[in-house]
Amino acid sequence: MPRKPVILLTNDDSIKAPGLRSLISSIRPFGRVVVVAPDRPQSGTAHAVTINVPLRLDLLAREKDYEEYACNGTPADCVKLAMKVILRKRPDFLFSGINHGSNASINIIYSGTMAAVFEGAMAGVPSVGFSLDDYSMTADFRPSQPYLERIVRQVITRGLPDGICLNVNFPASASIKGIKVCRQAGGTWKEDFDIREDPHGRDYYWLKGVYLKKDHGADTDQWAIENNYVAVVPVQFDFTANSALKLLHSWFR
Amino acid sequence: MPRKPVILLTNDDSIKAPGLRSLISSIRPFGRVVVVAPDRPQSGTAHAVTINVPLRLDLLAREKDYEEYACNGTPADCVKLAMKVILRKRPDFLFSGINHGSNASINIIYSGTMAAVFEGAMAGVPSVGFSLDDYSMTADFRPSQPYLERIVRQVITRGLPDGICLNVNFPASASIKGIKVCRQAGGTWKEDFDIREDPHGRDYYWLKGVYLKKDHGADTDQWAIENNYVAVVPVQFDFTANSALKLLHSWFR
Repeated sequence: MPRKPVILLTNDDSIKAPGLRSLISSIRPFGRVVVVAPDRPQSGTAHAVTINVPLRLDLLAREKDYEEYACNGTPADCVKLAMKVILRKRPDFLFSGINHGSNASINIIYSGTMAAVFEGAMAGVPSVGFSLDDYSMTADFRPSQPYLERIVRQVITRGLPDGICLNVNFPASASIKGIKVCRQAGGTWKEDFDIREDPHGRDYYWLKGVYLKKDHGADTDQWAIENNYVAVVPVQFDFTANSALKLLHSWFR
Repeated sequence: MPRKPVILLTNDDSIKAPGLRSLISSIRPFGRVVVVAPDRPQSGTAHAVTINVPLRLDLLAREKDYEEYACNGTPADCVKLAMKVILRKRPDFLFSGINHGSNASINIIYSGTMAAVFEGAMAGVPSVGFSLDDYSMTADFRPSQPYLERIVRQVITRGLPDGICLNVNFPASASIKGIKVCRQAGGTWKEDFDIREDPHGRDYYWLKGVYLKKDHGADTDQWAIENNYVAVVPVQFDFTANSALKLLHSWFR
C-alpha cells in the first residue's frame, strides 16, 4: 500500500473558525493531516511575516494521522513553522481555508488564506486556497463540500504545474451549478474611513469599504460566484507585466 | 503655468528611515509632496491592512508644498489614509521607498514598500517602488539618485499603463552601469527557525533565512542588481496564470 500523503491545512480566520473545521473533515480521509493555524483571526494580514516577535506553537490535538497546532503568527508564519519545525520537510499538499468571505478578484492581494497558499507553492508544494462568499461565522459550508472534494481529488491525483497554485471561491448558494475555471476579475474597493473622536479629543480612523465591480466578463471569478458557480483561478507569483516590457524598454534605451 | 503635481511618498522602514529622507530630497523639486509613512518599521508586513485597531495620523511638518505625517498602520494603510483623509483625492503620482534592502525576485511578495505601490496602482495612480540592495541603516543612497530622478522624470512625463506599476531595485554599488528593464527573477528563501527556550522553559522560534537564487537569466532583476545595473520591472496585480488555464479547463470539463 502506498504511504498516505502528508497534507498541511491552515487558514487566516483562526484555528477556531468553522470554515477550517469543515476543511478538516473533508480532507482527513485523504491522508495524514497536520493543521497549523493562527490562534486568532488574521484576515487582512496578506503575506505578512513575523520578524520582531518570537513565534509560539501550541499542540492542541494528536490522534492517529492527525495533529493540530495553534500559532501566534500569520498564515505565512504557520506554513513556514509547519515545514521547518513540525514536519521538518515539505508536506505533499497544502490546503488553506475555507475562508469566511470571498477572495475572488482583487481580494486575493489582501488575503492571508492565499498568502499561505503562495507560501506553499513557493516551496514547491501543490497548494490550493478555498473561500466561501459569505463573511458570517454561521455560513453553511455543506453545499461546497462535494466540489471541494472533487478539486482536492484532482490535485492529489495530478499535482499542479511548478509555480502555479489555485484560488477557489465558492458561491454562497445552496444550489451550486458546477465548477468554472476563470481568470481573476478586475475590481477594486471603494473605501472610506470613519473619522471618530476618542474620549481624549483625538481623532482616529476605521477603514470601511464596499467592493466595486469593474470587470463584467463571464470568464471571471467574480462572475462565476455571482452566478452560483465554483470559481477556480490558477494563480502565479511571478508578477512581471510582460505586456509592458516593450514600452519600458523604449523608455530606457 | 500648469499646476504642480501632487506626489504621495511612503515606505515601510518608517518615517525616520534615511532611505525615505533620500527619496524626499529627490522628489521635492518635482511638485507638491505629501509624505505619509509608518511611525515604526513595517518590513515584512506585505499587503496587510489594519482592521482591528484604530488608525492615527500625526502631522510632523508643514511647509510650502510639503507635508509630512506619521501613521500607526501599515504602508497600505498609509496610502489609503493619504487618499481618503489627508488629500481627499488621488495623488497624481506615488513613490515608495527607498527601501533598505532588495525587493527584487520573490522579495516583492513580502514587501510593504511594494504593497504601497500596488495600493496606488489599484487606485489608478502611476506608482513606483524604489529599493536599494543594502539592508544597513547607513546605506549610501547617493549613487542611486541620478537614476531615480531619471525614472521619476519618465513616469511624471508619460504616466504608466493602467494596471501596471514599477518595481525598481538599485545595486549596492558606487559605480552603477545603467538601467535594465527586467522580468522578476525566480528564487526563494532557504529558511529555518532558531529554536530557543524562554526563562520559563517554553520554546519559541525566530525566523532566519538566506535568499536562494534559482534563475540565472541575464534578463532578470536579480542578475541586474548583482551586475551593478538598476533593475526596472513592470509588475501587475492580475495574478492569473494564463499558461495554466487550458490544463485546468481539461480537469473540470
